[in-house]
Amino acid sequence: MAREIERKFLVTGDDWRPGVLGVPYRQGYLSAGADAGCTVRARIAGERAWLTLKGPAAEGARDEYEYPIPVADAEEMLERLCAGGRIEKLRHRVPFAGRTWEVDEFTGENAPLVVAEVELDRIDAEVTLPPWVGLEVTGDPRYTNAALARLPYSRWGKHSLAGEAPAP
Amino acid sequence: MAREIERKFLVTGDDWRPGVLGVPYRQGYLSAGADAGCTVRARIAGERAWLTLKGPAAEGARDEYEYPIPVADAEEMLERLCAGGRIEKLRHRVPFAGRTWEVDEFTGENAPLVVAEVELDRIDAEVTLPPWVGLEVTGDPRYTNAALARLPYSRWGKHSLAGEAPAP
Repeated sequence: MAREIERKFLVTGDDWRPGVLGVPYRQGYLSAGADAGCTVRARIAGERAWLTLKGPAAEGARDEYEYPIPVADAEEMLERLCAGGRIEKLRHRVPFAGRTWEVDEFTGENAPLVVAEVELDRIDAEVTLPPWVGLEVTGDPRYTNAALARLPYSRWGKHSLAGEAPAP
Repeated sequence: MAREIERKFLVTGDDWRPGVLGVPYRQGYLSAGADAGCTVRARIAGERAWLTLKGPAAEGARDEYEYPIPVADAEEMLERLCAGGRIEKLRHRVPFAGRTWEVDEFTGENAPLVVAEVELDRIDAEVTLPPWVGLEVTGDPRYTNAALARLPYSRWGKHSLAGEAPAP
């Protein structure tokens, strides 16, 4: 088991873009029981695919198990089993102040949402924030990819664009 | 993807036992959303382990994806993520009339339930039934392992022993 510990922020502006290429990600969630808190994700990133299990989130950290699977299996899962919804995004890896930030630019129904995540050893590790991140949304369940698959950003309503989305 | 097509029966008596050894199985279900119809199972069988995804059941058939995983991962999943419940059983492989039957003898809270399954190419394939099988329970959702993990057999009540369990 790995332990995923990360902080997540909304991205403001485009200053992170120069010199950065995005990789298309498609992913879906199988029986993502919001009650159980576990998620099971099939992800296709470029020409590879993974099956990932995550435990319930607590204080920015989650248990995580990830296994490579055939892309053909992942395609079928997205098509046939992911009733919980699907996500499309471009993932960009952006170095800043000694860390690598993952900037996810959502497409489809979750456009124009852009979030940035940084993985940490400890949730209270010191981090220099890039000038292009705004509101921190670590721990806000609406911004998990599983939640965005169920209730896409474009359906949140106007005021959500300022980070003030209605309760799901 | 594999396609799982099988028929399932209650087992009567012990005539299947001679010469047969059981392998201990422990398995659990992650966010087994009964609503979504998909199940995600971690299984430890002897010294090996698998992660298995199954789609909704329809007429005895289900989509199935199975991947080997480290036993240590499966142990942790059973311990930490399987809020949906766990199953313990002895699985016996019993040859009869040219087919191999899987006889599952449940232990723990699902004792003394014993069921036999036979895997088929088509749900209407011809099958010679062994004399030690009784009521067919194919398609009865109470007898899926995921359901038995949530509502164990020993809690069904007396009349269920005759295959007349109350609705879950």
